[in-house]
Amino acid sequence: MAFDETKTEDFKVVGQRVKRPDGVDKVTGKAKFGADAVAPGMLFAAVVRSPHAHAGIVKIDTSKAEALGGVKGVVTRADFATGLTGGDLDVLENVMAGEKALYDGHAVAAVAATSQLIARDAAKLIEVEYEVLPHVTDVDMAMASDAPVIREGAADQSVPEGMHANVVRYHESGHGDIEAGFAEADLVVEDSFKTEATHQGYIEPHACLAQLGGDNKGELWCCTQGHWNVQKLCAAMLGLETSQLRVTASEIGGGFGGKTAVFIEPVALALSRKTNRPVKLVMSRSEVFRATGPTASTSMDIKIGMKKDGTITAGQGTFRLQGGAFPGAPMEFTAMCAFAPYNLQNVKQVGYDVMANRPKQAAYRAPGSPMAAFAVESVIDELCKKLGLDPIEVRLKNASKQGTKASFGPTWDRIGLVETLEAAQSHPHYSAPLKEGQGRGISCGFWFNHGGETSVTLALSEDGTAQLSVGTPDIGGSRASMAQMAAEELGIPYENIRTTIADTATLGYNEVSHGSRVTYASGLATIKAARSAVKILCARAAAKWGIDEDAVVWENGCAKPSGPNAGEFDPLPIDKLTRSMGRTGGPIVGHFEATPEGAGVSFATHIVDAEVDKETGQTKVVRYTVVQDAGKAINPAYVEGQFQGGAAQGIGWALNEEYIYGEDGRLQNSVFLDYRIPVASDLPMIDTVIVEVPNPGHPYGVRGVGETSICPPLAAIANAVSNAAGVRLKELPMSPPRILAALENQAKNG
Amino acid sequence: MAFDETKTEDFKVVGQRVKRPDGVDKVTGKAKFGADAVAPGMLFAAVVRSPHAHAGIVKIDTSKAEALGGVKGVVTRADFATGLTGGDLDVLENVMAGEKALYDGHAVAAVAATSQLIARDAAKLIEVEYEVLPHVTDVDMAMASDAPVIREGAADQSVPEGMHANVVRYHESGHGDIEAGFAEADLVVEDSFKTEATHQGYIEPHACLAQLGGDNKGELWCCTQGHWNVQKLCAAMLGLETSQLRVTASEIGGGFGGKTAVFIEPVALALSRKTNRPVKLVMSRSEVFRATGPTASTSMDIKIGMKKDGTITAGQGTFRLQGGAFPGAPMEFTAMCAFAPYNLQNVKQVGYDVMANRPKQAAYRAPGSPMAAFAVESVIDELCKKLGLDPIEVRLKNASKQGTKASFGPTWDRIGLVETLEAAQSHPHYSAPLKEGQGRGISCGFWFNHGGETSVTLALSEDGTAQLSVGTPDIGGSRASMAQMAAEELGIPYENIRTTIADTATLGYNEVSHGSRVTYASGLATIKAARSAVKILCARAAAKWGIDEDAVVWENGCAKPSGPNAGEFDPLPIDKLTRSMGRTGGPIVGHFEATPEGAGVSFATHIVDAEVDKETGQTKVVRYTVVQDAGKAINPAYVEGQFQGGAAQGIGWALNEEYIYGEDGRLQNSVFLDYRIPVASDLPMIDTVIVEVPNPGHPYGVRGVGETSICPPLAAIANAVSNAAGVRLKELPMSPPRILAALENQAKNG
Repeated sequence: MAFDETKTEDFKVVGQRVKRPDGVDKVTGKAKFGADAVAPGMLFAAVVRSPHAHAGIVKIDTSKAEALGGVKGVVTRADFATGLTGGDLDVLENVMAGEKALYDGHAVAAVAATSQLIARDAAKLIEVEYEVLPHVTDVDMAMASDAPVIREGAADQSVPEGMHANVVRYHESGHGDIEAGFAEADLVVEDSFKTEATHQGYIEPHACLAQLGGDNKGELWCCTQGHWNVQKLCAAMLGLETSQLRVTASEIGGGFGGKTAVFIEPVALALSRKTNRPVKLVMSRSEVFRATGPTASTSMDIKIGMKKDGTITAGQGTFRLQGGAFPGAPMEFTAMCAFAPYNLQNVKQVGYDVMANRPKQAAYRAPGSPMAAFAVESVIDELCKKLGLDPIEVRLKNASKQGTKASFGPTWDRIGLVETLEAAQSHPHYSAPLKEGQGRGISCGFWFNHGGETSVTLALSEDGTAQLSVGTPDIGGSRASMAQMAAEELGIPYENIRTTIADTATLGYNEVSHGSRVTYASGLATIKAARSAVKILCARAAAKWGIDEDAVVWENGCAKPSGPNAGEFDPLPIDKLTRSMGRTGGPIVGHFEATPEGAGVSFATHIVDAEVDKETGQTKVVRYTVVQDAGKAINPAYVEGQFQGGAAQGIGWALNEEYIYGEDGRLQNSVFLDYRIPVASDLPMIDTVIVEVPNPGHPYGVRGVGETSICPPLAAIANAVSNAAGVRLKELPMSPPRILAALENQAKNG
Repeated sequence: MAFDETKTEDFKVVGQRVKRPDGVDKVTGKAKFGADAVAPGMLFAAVVRSPHAHAGIVKIDTSKAEALGGVKGVVTRADFATGLTGGDLDVLENVMAGEKALYDGHAVAAVAATSQLIARDAAKLIEVEYEVLPHVTDVDMAMASDAPVIREGAADQSVPEGMHANVVRYHESGHGDIEAGFAEADLVVEDSFKTEATHQGYIEPHACLAQLGGDNKGELWCCTQGHWNVQKLCAAMLGLETSQLRVTASEIGGGFGGKTAVFIEPVALALSRKTNRPVKLVMSRSEVFRATGPTASTSMDIKIGMKKDGTITAGQGTFRLQGGAFPGAPMEFTAMCAFAPYNLQNVKQVGYDVMANRPKQAAYRAPGSPMAAFAVESVIDELCKKLGLDPIEVRLKNASKQGTKASFGPTWDRIGLVETLEAAQSHPHYSAPLKEGQGRGISCGFWFNHGGETSVTLALSEDGTAQLSVGTPDIGGSRASMAQMAAEELGIPYENIRTTIADTATLGYNEVSHGSRVTYASGLATIKAARSAVKILCARAAAKWGIDEDAVVWENGCAKPSGPNAGEFDPLPIDKLTRSMGRTGGPIVGHFEATPEGAGVSFATHIVDAEVDKETGQTKVVRYTVVQDAGKAINPAYVEGQFQGGAAQGIGWALNEEYIYGEDGRLQNSVFLDYRIPVASDLPMIDTVIVEVPNPGHPYGVRGVGETSICPPLAAIANAVSNAAGVRLKELPMSPPRILAALENQAKNG
């Protein structure tokens, strides 16, 4: 049979809006999230956190806590592995402070007790003597010469001489002659922008249950986007053989990138090993805000030159990203995405990774890209306005296409930016009249996709149904889309497939559910695993018929003789073959393990209408349309959900969400009452258009869709709000006080 | 590399007495057994059971129970699938009675409530109206013409005309001319024997936690020897797609064959579906005795002819097995094993599968074989005594060997009976003097091994440790022995491997842990999976070196260039290869799925010294030696444990254990106080000799050892006791009343 062919049409299950396999469990409360794990004899943990943004830890006295009835053990940094270096050491430093507390909320000790209340009481009895140090939380201030140094020697060799020690990594990329490009322009606009840190705002706080014995064999149940990564990191933190720690991912109540890191898991394991009891650790919302991974805050300078006809002659961006008290702010991604939509002859990106006394940033959907789009697309909008050009026409004129050289180096393969711009242009939204006080903004956005290590197993049951085992936690409906792809290949109903997120002990390595990789990589692996199962099925049929394996084809869930044998035997349906599998060679299982290299990239164009109340500074998004290239939408309902979710989170980020630190370096808004994510009444209906420009690197053409949808919103909303307010907004969030300040500033300065 | 070679020497890890991987968890109470599973919002169930041995179910009134506060749902037969036939129908009938209760303890309804106490109270409020019917519990009485019929039409076509309807299957096998054989003999002994049903006596009662939604998707955690079988059976009972029920096997506190069947699992699932809540169901000890699967009781006639020189000229056996109210007593196995140790020219076996008003029998270590050995080896012992021959010499003279035709048909491959007899003969035990009042008995025993569907996955971690995923519950130390075999192949320390019993969703189909198949079949699959991982490792090294894959060998956990490239590159240790696996092709995983066909068979010879107190009838086993062929002992400590466990259970079966039914057909001894299993003080030190005659069908020569060890004890002990008492004991158990009766009978009849 033709075994590895690409399928692009005549889909039966793929493309359908099938039922969620986890729907009933979730609406009836049966689904087990992180905090639902329980074990006999389990203890409850509480973490002691620094109230200081920067402080030496002089002494930790745990005696009073240990004397409290019900307390079974206390851990500090001394209970973790020593001798770690590089990234592992950074993770451990963040999980449990060593000599210094580096931010408000930094863990310094933890306690396990027989009840949650006792654990919390005991945490209060742990006495930590601090030596308070000067701190800094703002990105620009952290780079200033008088800023306190967060950690000496944290910078790598990329940083140019003379930079402050808080600048720990430096990036430069681009091509062409940037100054010559600006000289060619009819108009050059240069401006600066800032964005504040935001949190992913997942509903479910981090939660885990750990069990680790004195024999260093353990199990961990936790809410995570990637349990193999948790396994590897926790093994390093605790000094275990990786394989001896089995990690199971729970259902996940939102992650958006923020659950790709570990925070509490090594702590719970250390407490379990010390107490020889299972230990449960669940974060409060305040702990989630103070001590997990928000986005980087940024400070950006953009300079773009344009001819009168709209041709961009040069683009330059400087991106300073504050990523907390550890290296790793995604400034390369910011640099990479900033000008990616445009075919530029002259382009330059500079990035700075800046440390400050804040929690280490973590991924949040397309990390670094939304801020870049906000800055670049704001300047392009300003250029269009000043030159009297249509913003979509300008973007179409300069759009990246297959074969053009990307701003960050490679040559584009088949991409769908033009198709999204054209779809946006012809969408009724773009030509709809605006009301008084409203403004319209558009923006393009870009995110790459990632392949990553992927393992999938597909095992057939005797009744011809199938069990699909994947290793990427289902953060966006992947159990459904994987089952659809498997059903498509096997030619059986979607309902006949159960997709399970396997634990680390029972499947090959799987990279985290991030980088919009799941539908692409686990999907590709699912298709390949199904095809290998089909190959076995065909071989069994061939053996039964006494014909060559290659003379058997698989159609509609049946093996059929083909070629010279066509019609010679009745088709054998899958359940006939599976019922006898034990005596015709054994269990029928398809496998696939690889690091797929053909991940596509995805572009989107968003259209936003906003209105601004110039008296109060209040904004409202009144209409929103997302146009995005999905490559191939396996389950359109989930794709639309991703589109809408990205827009909704973008609305929050653009308008109201931000980390507010006081002069004392402490976070002032660590609950949802003070950290304002959008609620239903803040959102319009978000319209979606799925563009399908197939990714040649996937058997069905899939491109990841989970991240690109959050790239354009900040910019599109900023353009809409700026157009409505009549003043350019250059700082996020565009909260009422900032809008009023911008209006006042404009009035003052003309 | 030479990839599929057989290894028989120079083992580094195999053959070592390594630490139990589950040791710490089990001694510290962390190991999760069936009853340790918990889920948020879980309900507790209780089962209503028939107090009658045979009764029509006229009416079940659940209204009072349902009205009790805390009761969430009641199920009866109406809540299970309809339209089942054959074996599935029998299982369902046993799990939940339909129109008739067929034995004391037969489930007729079940209830789920918010606490165990409420559930038990509610069970008492369920009113069942019975129409009591005549019953029969004894095997011979069940075959008598006046016996009540358990179920009309249950017999299959094998049963000769004129038999009672309770005889449901018939078997006949053998070869040669049996009458001519007896005519050749110098002495013919013919006698009849009976054995009572015994229970496996596992310490852990059956327990499960079920979760099944209205969408017919569910999960089940249970204590079982085979969760794929549970999955298949429960799916049928509940009318589910097999793949939509995920089953996880807990730690198992003993099974011995008795946990190969389902009893409470479908009931818990039905209750969960009805209440939409997780439901926990744990049997009491009394329920375990009354309503799980004890052994068959038997009635057997044996006739053997022998020449003066010890040559057996003919053997004949008739085996009537009572297997409860359903077909399936293992009379074919009894027939197959009876004369298996002997090379007979003339042999005939006849078997009857007889139904009675008792719980359906289940497997118990070598089902059917111990009883056969008891009867046949008693007669051989009697012949030896009467002809003045040494019992081991006689057995050696007639022993089955490679190339001789087995009593049940096939020709023997390489087997180790002679080696066990010779080792027994030369063991100090056999020539040690006996004290006054003591007798010595020996017996041979036989059990075949089974291959069965087997799936194994071996996934490497980045640090070069390995995760081995097998599907056969660890009932006898298989996690250790599998890890030893994997470590041997990978050339890494035993401690670097974690063996996990995968659930049904994450691995291909696996047959039950029975038939002494695990070390053979899962072991073979582990070796093959490890070899396939090694093949990938070698390919990665070859790619790195730019040489041919076949020019790489794997030695001591390292890839090494060989042949023309030998010495050209430094050896690459496993962790160097695994750390880069993500970028050299992806995760490294070995797989194996098959139904291995090369299972060996295993023979044993046991020597027992017993003494009998002729006044009280009390017996004591004073010395016990087990000699058994293990093929290759992967972990000698576990092999010895199996040998000793078989002997210990055999001592209980031989001397005291039995199901005692009253005239009313109700079980009278359904607790351990009344059903007397041996305690430590009942047992001597049980000496062991491991014989290793490799099985050519396994890469290391493994033969299963779990069952053969219970085949000789009944006979060896009976021979010892008979020799000590001076009277032939023909009924088991040889409890004090039976011994006194035999002595009195002998005194009376001379």
